[in-house]
Amino acid sequence: MGVMGRNLALNIESRGYCVSIYNRSKDKTDAVIFNNPKRNIIPFYSVKTFVLSLKKPRFIFLMITSGIYIDDVIKVLLMYISPGDILIDGGNSFYKDTMRRNFELSKRGIYFIGTGISGGEEGALKGPSLMPGGQIDAYEMVESVFKKIAARVGNETCVSYIGPSGSGHYVKMVHNGIEYGDMQIIAEIYFFLKNIFHLTHEELGKIFNEWNQGELNSYLIEITSRIFVKKDVNNKYIIDSVLDVAENKGTGAWVGQDAIDLAIPLSMITESVFARYISVLKNQRIKASKIFIGPNKKVFLESKYSYLEKAQKALYLGKIILYAQGFYQLKIASDKYHWNLNYKEIAKIFRAGCIIRAKFLQKIIDIYSQNPEITNLMLSPYCVSVANNYQRMLRDVVVCGIRYGVPMPALSAAIAYYDSYRSDLLPANLIQAQRDCFGAHTYTCVDKQGLFHTDWLE
Amino acid sequence: MGVMGRNLALNIESRGYCVSIYNRSKDKTDAVIFNNPKRNIIPFYSVKTFVLSLKKPRFIFLMITSGIYIDDVIKVLLMYISPGDILIDGGNSFYKDTMRRNFELSKRGIYFIGTGISGGEEGALKGPSLMPGGQIDAYEMVESVFKKIAARVGNETCVSYIGPSGSGHYVKMVHNGIEYGDMQIIAEIYFFLKNIFHLTHEELGKIFNEWNQGELNSYLIEITSRIFVKKDVNNKYIIDSVLDVAENKGTGAWVGQDAIDLAIPLSMITESVFARYISVLKNQRIKASKIFIGPNKKVFLESKYSYLEKAQKALYLGKIILYAQGFYQLKIASDKYHWNLNYKEIAKIFRAGCIIRAKFLQKIIDIYSQNPEITNLMLSPYCVSVANNYQRMLRDVVVCGIRYGVPMPALSAAIAYYDSYRSDLLPANLIQAQRDCFGAHTYTCVDKQGLFHTDWLE
Repeated sequence: MGVMGRNLALNIESRGYCVSIYNRSKDKTDAVIFNNPKRNIIPFYSVKTFVLSLKKPRFIFLMITSGIYIDDVIKVLLMYISPGDILIDGGNSFYKDTMRRNFELSKRGIYFIGTGISGGEEGALKGPSLMPGGQIDAYEMVESVFKKIAARVGNETCVSYIGPSGSGHYVKMVHNGIEYGDMQIIAEIYFFLKNIFHLTHEELGKIFNEWNQGELNSYLIEITSRIFVKKDVNNKYIIDSVLDVAENKGTGAWVGQDAIDLAIPLSMITESVFARYISVLKNQRIKASKIFIGPNKKVFLESKYSYLEKAQKALYLGKIILYAQGFYQLKIASDKYHWNLNYKEIAKIFRAGCIIRAKFLQKIIDIYSQNPEITNLMLSPYCVSVANNYQRMLRDVVVCGIRYGVPMPALSAAIAYYDSYRSDLLPANLIQAQRDCFGAHTYTCVDKQGLFHTDWLE
Repeated sequence: MGVMGRNLALNIESRGYCVSIYNRSKDKTDAVIFNNPKRNIIPFYSVKTFVLSLKKPRFIFLMITSGIYIDDVIKVLLMYISPGDILIDGGNSFYKDTMRRNFELSKRGIYFIGTGISGGEEGALKGPSLMPGGQIDAYEMVESVFKKIAARVGNETCVSYIGPSGSGHYVKMVHNGIEYGDMQIIAEIYFFLKNIFHLTHEELGKIFNEWNQGELNSYLIEITSRIFVKKDVNNKYIIDSVLDVAENKGTGAWVGQDAIDLAIPLSMITESVFARYISVLKNQRIKASKIFIGPNKKVFLESKYSYLEKAQKALYLGKIILYAQGFYQLKIASDKYHWNLNYKEIAKIFRAGCIIRAKFLQKIIDIYSQNPEITNLMLSPYCVSVANNYQRMLRDVVVCGIRYGVPMPALSAAIAYYDSYRSDLLPANLIQAQRDCFGAHTYTCVDKQGLFHTDWLE
């Protein structure tokens, strides 16, 4: 019973339910009871007594590390649960595993819901964003519980039936990928402002706080503004002591791999994953920093203030391209697996509770309200208008980063995607000609039907 | 029996062997015999007679589409082959499939070699680059055949034992990924020169031909120079009729997915795969081209001639970073699977026969001769020296591309990688702080041991 499981149990209990809990090791179960006295939570020390304590049909949340452990736990649970019971995997399981488990369990009459839960430990406790996928009739049974524990935006709850089988975990995976991208482009802008314009932590905190009042308003911008100015007991900025080696738990990696599978150009999230990987090569980087040269960073002739506005707008356009890439992946996956995803509902769920909650999500909701079948968010009037107004700023910021040797892999990918996407012609004709030349792969023509082959070297 | 299988059979026969051939459909087998009379090639129309025609230990090349077909064919072959026989998969099989097949067959005493074969149809016929992985004793038995059919550089043959099991197909996969990258950066430079400097096909052909005389000398640069000027019967440049939609056969995708698995920042190859994917979205691109704006491309104040040299050097540094990323992946995979890869031998194999053959490979051979254990090619004196001399040109070219709205996803990734790699500090400290803030993931400090957690928002 990790922090997510404990907090979710407390959340459910706080909505008026009696919750049975079980953990592999007794200590953690007891700790929950000890630290939360007078709560309607009952500890169990065997799977059997735990299962038998539940009212049928049983709702059982599995809050365990994703991977084969889940199969092991399911195997044990199968000894005691009955047809009609509902297993709910609230971890970050790989969606193909969830599809397999859903299928296998359905043969035994057991329902299986794979649900994304976002919001970190605080979200789990007070109201997460929930993305449940599985049998619709199973969802209908648990819906009232899910609605009570989820985050809220006004009268609306941040939960909605996503679709069958692995679709809930798929949406969570894409959510996490977007989260990687959001964090990376914020980090790039931070590095840009810090290294070229030498902004202090206080200035950075103030700027991000200001940005948080506008279209960039989001949980990540807000916490970033506060992280900059957080000091330790010695009055030193903590951010300066944090090692620049970013870890990851795998969901960002999955979404990039799945994009490659589905033939989707998901460049920003993938560059964000690679940026974490390169951060891990700290020893190589230290060595390299001593032998490679870059531009002279000391000279900067343009106004710092003009670049603050440019950075803000570059970040916003970068964010739009990031979400467009992510939602495009949802669409292609939905088509492939016949999930019939409701993108508007998904954007609604993301508005509160979860890490990527942001004002921009309302724009996405509006876009899908106007055109639920839009191919790519980029093609919406809103995104076209922002892009046309801000593309110059994104260009200026990335160019300035390259000129001054400040790496901006995700924002560079954003402008490259933008310029590729708006090109009716790309140099892929040369690639097709090369393939035909060395491998006789043939090519298609712009002006006639069929496949052609040329002996290019004769 | 596709073109690769047929040409390989003809190649083997031409070295003095008698070759038995078999194909699922009789027609293709007969066509080989009909079109190649008086050759020592004997057609068979059943697997049984085919297998029984071979001298023991039998050497059987499987030249079929990768995937489950191979398992089907192996299942049939197992009815007739004997322990000690050697099956050789010469297709682009996924290395994990090859590992599995090698393991399964070894339990029956059958050897299994998965070999990369590069060089397209011409290479297969006249001398490919071969990358065999499997049992060393099996390789020793087939070595004399492999050496005779392989491409040559002087007295050396482009074949060498790669390592156990799936290592041969792994090296081929990385080779193909590098090929994707090489093709993409050439395409980007082509698009850059064409769109900003309005070079004609004849000028492009001449420039690439000149570049082919220098450090960029390579098969791909050579064929590109010839593709530009190739005309059809109506005296029109064929490259202009080729549709700009690039296809792919999957190996580039695999290498990107495997990089994500192994935590390797393989950004250039992955961006090259994404560039092909975005080229496929032709309909969206046409729509987007009409509604999105970019910079005005008509004004260009700097000299065309200064940019020709910059483009050449940007391309070369891009190539170096591409190969450094690819060879780093080989190293990490070799460590993970205990393959003990010999990078110098691999670079040697790539020098002829294969698509990525290039003068630069001699530099890689020299680097590994001096330091076989070098962590990353980038850290070699040669690469450091080129990078320090050319980084400004790569910067100038990418900046110019962004300024003029010409997408350069792979070269943008190259400079972002360069600037990340040479940064002793990256903004990953902010990412770690964010992760700790919303998920209590903890962080490491620059100045003290242990894991730390801060309540950033209190």
